[in-house]
Amino acid sequence: MSATILSGSELAKEMRQEIEADVAEFVGQHSFTPTVAIVRAGEDPASVSYSNALEKSFGARGLGFQLHTLPDIASQQEIEELVSQLNANATIHGIMIQEPLPRGIDEAVIKDALSSDKDVDGVHPVNTGRLAQAAPTGRPAMVGPFFAPATPSGGMEILKRNSVNLQGKHAVVVGRSTIVGKPMALLLLRENATVSLCHSQTADLPGMCRTADVLCAAVGRANMIKGSWIKPGAFVIDFGVNFVEGVMVGDVDFEEAKEVAGMITPVPGGTGPMTNIMLMKNVIAAARRQTE
Amino acid sequence: MSATILSGSELAKEMRQEIEADVAEFVGQHSFTPTVAIVRAGEDPASVSYSNALEKSFGARGLGFQLHTLPDIASQQEIEELVSQLNANATIHGIMIQEPLPRGIDEAVIKDALSSDKDVDGVHPVNTGRLAQAAPTGRPAMVGPFFAPATPSGGMEILKRNSVNLQGKHAVVVGRSTIVGKPMALLLLRENATVSLCHSQTADLPGMCRTADVLCAAVGRANMIKGSWIKPGAFVIDFGVNFVEGVMVGDVDFEEAKEVAGMITPVPGGTGPMTNIMLMKNVIAAARRQTE
Repeated sequence: MSATILSGSELAKEMRQEIEADVAEFVGQHSFTPTVAIVRAGEDPASVSYSNALEKSFGARGLGFQLHTLPDIASQQEIEELVSQLNANATIHGIMIQEPLPRGIDEAVIKDALSSDKDVDGVHPVNTGRLAQAAPTGRPAMVGPFFAPATPSGGMEILKRNSVNLQGKHAVVVGRSTIVGKPMALLLLRENATVSLCHSQTADLPGMCRTADVLCAAVGRANMIKGSWIKPGAFVIDFGVNFVEGVMVGDVDFEEAKEVAGMITPVPGGTGPMTNIMLMKNVIAAARRQTE
Repeated sequence: MSATILSGSELAKEMRQEIEADVAEFVGQHSFTPTVAIVRAGEDPASVSYSNALEKSFGARGLGFQLHTLPDIASQQEIEELVSQLNANATIHGIMIQEPLPRGIDEAVIKDALSSDKDVDGVHPVNTGRLAQAAPTGRPAMVGPFFAPATPSGGMEILKRNSVNLQGKHAVVVGRSTIVGKPMALLLLRENATVSLCHSQTADLPGMCRTADVLCAAVGRANMIKGSWIKPGAFVIDFGVNFVEGVMVGDVDFEEAKEVAGMITPVPGGTGPMTNIMLMKNVIAAARRQTE
């Protein structure tokens, strides 16, 4: 038996058209363009190539894109001042701080400085807190509006668009980063899954994974999750981006896993292409909220 | 075999002395007293008896206590104005909004209006978000200072003071309220437990509970968790406060559970008495931070 491959690339292609339609509608109503500002300090190569890719995809959808760079010797105060200017600039609707920030910069203070209304990657504590406090989807949220981080939101969108019913299912998230693992756990909980969060200290990780109806991997270790760790028929969402001899692979051993899982996202072409899509959606949502 | 009974009453008695010593030290250094303000709108009987109990225990420890009441016809604006006055009042270090608020009041807006520095019961989204983002205990937190809700903090204190090692253990939390279940899950995660969050939609709740090394109940259903749901030797923390024919009982069927568990908190006399203790600790911590 071989799993259905959940292609994020195909879904992203579909959603790009939806986004173009949303942008056209927005511009028609408001005569200005939802715009994101990226803050980068230094020239970390992965960070540079990521902001280039963002520029290209935002531009292609008709969205506004600004890159604000500082040298890698930028001080805490300089970065905070830039963030504060962008917060105050009404022509910018979303702000994203690229990591890594230079050594010695207190990232927590930078995140706190960000306007939570423009925090389109959901890193400000207010956005994390509202995500954590929010009632299940479909019920009154009981919190103010918030943004969830783009990467786990993309994973959720793949599940949703493939009509995966999460209610009462056991979802196991491996990895507890603030940008993927923890928000993914909170998003799954909002869909009424029973959620288990595993990490490097988990005593019997293969055993925990085997109980998962939905298994989400966000650890950053190439091919770590083996086929024998997967419950037959499970849905597997792989957030891993690792390189083995120059080849991009996920956290899940795809060749083994696809023989056991019911559905699985590949790497590349799975959750990766969805991140930009969700970021664009958040920028449009931010522009809407700011002009209401 | 019968479980060790983890008495919260006994621990609270010990900790009252620690708190009195902390208060004496603080007052000696600062010549003013850490002070909490309670906001209550209306005369809900449970709410009235809780604020009376708080007044008594804060007073007995030498802590400042103020009760600010509004009628149950208070408007959203009146409550927000009171919160905003208390935020601005430098002689008040902690603020706690009593629930339930009157019908028609938007609680989310009231929580957002609270100064996160004075939010000693950890209900403001910034405090929830920092708790969710915080790195494991013992490592640099990577977030600003925060307050965790008093009730789950009391449960954690019982585990800690009984030298329960949570690292790599499977902790199952039943109930996902914003004030107990979810913050308890986040606190357990900070101690490197593998954490599963179960709730009313969980498919096989007894089965999930049976995998728990540490089982935390916060559902609000009398005696719901049976002895047969408990793994022999497990540590059981019961946050339930229910009344059956006038008698206070927990969410765990204590008589059955104590024959199976390794350690268990009773109801009453378990997590209950610890809530005020943790609230007092948070008020002292808030006063320290505000005078640093």
